[in-house]
Amino acid sequence: MDANDGFRGLDRQECLALMATVPVGRIVYTRQALPAVLPVNFLLDTDGAVVVRTSAASELVHAVDGAVVAFETDEVDTAAHSGWSVVVMGSAALVTDPAEHARLLRTGPRSWVPAPREVFVRIDPELVTGRELAAGHSLYGLRGPS
Amino acid sequence: MDANDGFRGLDRQECLALMATVPVGRIVYTRQALPAVLPVNFLLDTDGAVVVRTSAASELVHAVDGAVVAFETDEVDTAAHSGWSVVVMGSAALVTDPAEHARLLRTGPRSWVPAPREVFVRIDPELVTGRELAAGHSLYGLRGPS
Repeated sequence: MDANDGFRGLDRQECLALMATVPVGRIVYTRQALPAVLPVNFLLDTDGAVVVRTSAASELVHAVDGAVVAFETDEVDTAAHSGWSVVVMGSAALVTDPAEHARLLRTGPRSWVPAPREVFVRIDPELVTGRELAAGHSLYGLRGPS
Repeated sequence: MDANDGFRGLDRQECLALMATVPVGRIVYTRQALPAVLPVNFLLDTDGAVVVRTSAASELVHAVDGAVVAFETDEVDTAAHSGWSVVVMGSAALVTDPAEHARLLRTGPRSWVPAPREVFVRIDPELVTGRELAAGHSLYGLRGPS
């Protein structure tokens, strides 16, 4: 990061704290050799893992189970020209342990509308990066990371 | 798309019309062999191309010039459980033609804070896909695309 570009790098704890304030993020994965981006609601688990609840029959599960994916969240104030973005990168895996599945049914993200058979996908927070844009400075990408 | 998953596929014109209503999208590209996601403000050109303005010295320009990238926009109403998302996929290229650069200085996206030397990056809308979630149906990803 260039010290003059208006961005401030965020440490892991700051990133996770900001992520926890938004209900929806975007999972970035590969579908038929092309990048796919899908908004999903999610919950941040106590260890910083991203947990997504989806239908067992969804394409998403088959595409991401065992793959390294990125999960992006952001909040931008277009009037104030301020905001932040955080990206979690790590392996995604279907939760298969029954006890863990039961725990997530109680504490995990809720379905907006239930599917017949739901599963949880967990993204390990192997790499957590983020940056904050101070008001009055240039926006994300406009100056770009250096 | 599964007709029962609560999503409606959007045609190209619908996608571009929705994209034009939001000021910020996310450019998805490859940085050091890993997926990078960066929120940027943008303008939709008359031909549906995504135009981003950035510093000539930004890492973004070097990373995306000549590469195929994805550009995602969305709008989600978490209270109503409705929303849409659109992804444009195509080749990104630095605008080098002086006349085109001059035109974009007049009509293109504005800098939130000017950089010393600014350039425009154009993403060709080679593939435009999107979907809409009707209120009362399941959210993005929760049922997933089929």
